[in-house]
Amino acid sequence: MELSYVTAGESHGPGLTVVVSGVPAGLELDRETIRRDLARRQAGYGRSPRQKLEQDDAEVTAGVRHGRTLGSPIAMFIQNRDHRNWTHPMSAWPVTEAELDEYGWRGKPVSLPRPGHADLAGVLKYGHEDVRNVLERASARETAARVAAGAVAKAIIGAIGIEVRSHVLQVGSVRATAPAWLQVEDFDRAERSEVRCLDPGAERAMIEEIEAAKRERDTLGGVTETRAFNVPPGLGSHVSAGQRLDG
Amino acid sequence: MELSYVTAGESHGPGLTVVVSGVPAGLELDRETIRRDLARRQAGYGRSPRQKLEQDDAEVTAGVRHGRTLGSPIAMFIQNRDHRNWTHPMSAWPVTEAELDEYGWRGKPVSLPRPGHADLAGVLKYGHEDVRNVLERASARETAARVAAGAVAKAIIGAIGIEVRSHVLQVGSVRATAPAWLQVEDFDRAERSEVRCLDPGAERAMIEEIEAAKRERDTLGGVTETRAFNVPPGLGSHVSAGQRLDG
Amino acid sequence: MELSYVTAGESHGPGLTVVVSGVPAGLELDRETIRRDLARRQAGYGRSPRQKLEQDDAEVTAGVRHGRTLGSPIAMFIQNRDHRNWTHPMSAWPVTEAELDEYGWRGKPVSLPRPGHADLAGVLKYGHEDVRNVLERASARETAARVAAGAVAKAIIGAIGIEVRSHVLQVGSVRATAPAWLQVEDFDRAERSEVRCLDPGAERAMIEEIEAAKRERDTLGGVTETRAFNVPPGLGSHVSAGQRLDG
Amino acid sequence: MELSYVTAGESHGPGLTVVVSGVPAGLELDRETIRRDLARRQAGYGRSPRQKLEQDDAEVTAGVRHGRTLGSPIAMFIQNRDHRNWTHPMSAWPVTEAELDEYGWRGKPVSLPRPGHADLAGVLKYGHEDVRNVLERASARETAARVAAGAVAKAIIGAIGIEVRSHVLQVGSVRATAPAWLQVEDFDRAERSEVRCLDPGAERAMIEEIEAAKRERDTLGGVTETRAFNVPPGLGSHVSAGQRLDG
Repeated sequence: MELSYVTAGESHGPGLTVVVSGVPAGLELDRETIRRDLARRQAGYGRSPRQKLEQDDAEVTAGVRHGRTLGSPIAMFIQNRDHRNWTHPMSAWPVTEAELDEYGWRGKPVSLPRPGHADLAGVLKYGHEDVRNVLERASARETAARVAAGAVAKAIIGAIGIEVRSHVLQVGSVRATAPAWLQVEDFDRAERSEVRCLDPGAERAMIEEIEAAKRERDTLGGVTETRAFNVPPGLGSHVSAGQRLDG
Repeated sequence: MELSYVTAGESHGPGLTVVVSGVPAGLELDRETIRRDLARRQAGYGRSPRQKLEQDDAEVTAGVRHGRTLGSPIAMFIQNRDHRNWTHPMSAWPVTEAELDEYGWRGKPVSLPRPGHADLAGVLKYGHEDVRNVLERASARETAARVAAGAVAKAIIGAIGIEVRSHVLQVGSVRATAPAWLQVEDFDRAERSEVRCLDPGAERAMIEEIEAAKRERDTLGGVTETRAFNVPPGLGSHVSAGQRLDG
Repeated sequence: MELSYVTAGESHGPGLTVVVSGVPAGLELDRETIRRDLARRQAGYGRSPRQKLEQDDAEVTAGVRHGRTLGSPIAMFIQNRDHRNWTHPMSAWPVTEAELDEYGWRGKPVSLPRPGHADLAGVLKYGHEDVRNVLERASARETAARVAAGAVAKAIIGAIGIEVRSHVLQVGSVRATAPAWLQVEDFDRAERSEVRCLDPGAERAMIEEIEAAKRERDTLGGVTETRAFNVPPGLGSHVSAGQRLDG
Repeated sequence: MELSYVTAGESHGPGLTVVVSGVPAGLELDRETIRRDLARRQAGYGRSPRQKLEQDDAEVTAGVRHGRTLGSPIAMFIQNRDHRNWTHPMSAWPVTEAELDEYGWRGKPVSLPRPGHADLAGVLKYGHEDVRNVLERASARETAARVAAGAVAKAIIGAIGIEVRSHVLQVGSVRATAPAWLQVEDFDRAERSEVRCLDPGAERAMIEEIEAAKRERDTLGGVTETRAFNVPPGLGSHVSAGQRLDG
């Protein structure tokens, strides 16, 4: 069975669900590693306060027993701690106008699509009147579920010694200098850097550019580099375009 | 996007998760209908006491807001109420021998595969030493998650007027007589029958045969018939074998 | 990569194409075996003369070299020998009215959907005016492509010793008697029987019932039984409904 | 049904097969457009002589009738004109040593994996002794089948007015200057440029750099830009990562 995953969950709903299928049985999973990956996603210079607040934890509700996978689908649930402030506005079942009114702006429909997001396309495509019905899913929050799935995937490839590391190469106009022959341990600096940058000079310039953008109420793009170490030949395949590692 | 679903969850784990993807936005879902379908699964003559105990409810944690689908994946969680008696034996994370000992037989590995189940094939295929690692998933309990997914699917086809009904045609050697031109309302009797049979005479004989089998510690096979009413032409397709309605 | 196949091809078009993906590399394939399976599909009492005419052969155009699979997708093309009588009526590209006229009834649109086929549903669903646009695909001819795919699949399981045999248990009202403990060699009789039946008495009665139905311009249903020998435990899986052997 | 395609075919085998499934019925396809896209793939400065030789044409063998799609899978076959020089070395079925000897080097196994290709990984993964068993599929030739599939895809989006254009932004170290507000007609220059570049100055420099690399028996990377015009909102979806347009 091929490895696959599916995520569900709205940003202010009860939580995010991810089901990972096709994981081999007997694989060791570690709770702390999943938690650390989720925490790493929440770190980052200039993040919105909410991402700090959450302190995500993935409750494993299926597919793992006593720290080892069973071969059955793995389900994880990441609670949205902020949901308590959205119980009625994000209720799965009908609520009254009065119940919504108690929540102030949280109980009101959103009519303004955010620029640079899927909001406008989403309301047009799905025929929603409340932009919230799109923005709740077109949200960075969903990536927490993917990080949890990724932690399982990393455990699979980790079992054959593969290690994956990443760092930030560019933020806005600032490009970092990185040695061509990076070793696994060189990436430790990224873990300690607020902007996950290996180059201390670039790091300072990146932070300055982020601060300047924030003052302008703007955001910045960037470039990251991800490297996998100890990859054996034969991952992926040449036989079809969709199976190539870069496919 | 095609309609699809995935289920996860062990029989005595925290609960069952199902994610249904590809459901159109704006579809009305009704909590009571889902609950009724789950209850119907639990009914049935001669069921194990546990299935009576559970009184399943599907908590919708994603994809539905104020009774309408959002277009995003729908996640449902069906708690295993019995999990409180299995917290450590079915823990996702490592536990101590002492913690397991408190649970008596529940804390002990299972070494006897059940006949007629996937237990033996499962331990051989996945290399498990504890048969519980298979039987927890190779369990009728998993069908609760599929019933919840089915309730969503019935809401989709219900929106265009399709109604699905079923009844039991045969249990063991007893075959019911059913009129060829069954109407939707004829199936109301199945809802009231302990063995979901439309034929009162066959119903009595079925119950007797079930009782006899129970005394022999045996089980019985059967035949059910499912009919869909008001189906418009054009569901499924002739273009590929896998898309045919019977494919 | 999971084993999968896709077929294409209209009944009177140039031919049928099948692509089988996910076949392991290094598997021995035998041209004669594929041909024999295609011939077996064409045999059968009371078949239309056309099925006799064709003497199908699958040209392997990809994925096999010197009798061994390469690991890449396997493509096969089964020519429709009758296509020469349908060149213009079934041309992929536009033709003139005059060109169609040369083909008599073959050049005319079909307006009568066949009962018991997908014709009516197909024209409604796809908005065709010519029923031929459906019946060319909703045709027993397509099964030739599936038989070729099946021959590859049988080579895969044959490599671990699995053998698949089948026979006809029932035609119309005639039910054959078959021993419960059938061995592989017991099925040799099915290969020699015009109706693939193991029971000589039932065979005669089946042929009579087929002849009677033909006189009434009717067709008959039936029941076949397929058995797989030497199946090792662990094919399929209990972890998801769709992966069960009977799923 | 979702739009999908599968390709098959080795570089010097009989030809390439592509099956495109899920194309709506009634869509107009044009033979010339497919041919033009295939020709465009073969053009390009510094291409190997073989790619000039082939003059590809896709024979549509399924799913299209009189210039309109039927709703059934579309099969296309692109003959490898060079196959006549490889009949025995690339035969699907066993051949004798003597038959192979007639083909000189073409009949000999390849033992040297090409750098920068999947050759080494392929022989290790699939256990091949002849590198040809990999390189025949790990070949730019396969992209011809994808171009044919892409021509069908462009016909689908073309039916709602979407037009897709591309140009080469960079070859080796030479970067072209392109106006930010490109219109559809600006891309006509790319069709006439040997290196598909919109910037005449960069075009000359690119050709010089390609010539220099050829003299060194080296190759160059590059950057292309593709733009889609008249795209309506609502293609793709925010609901799952895999459904995003950039997913």
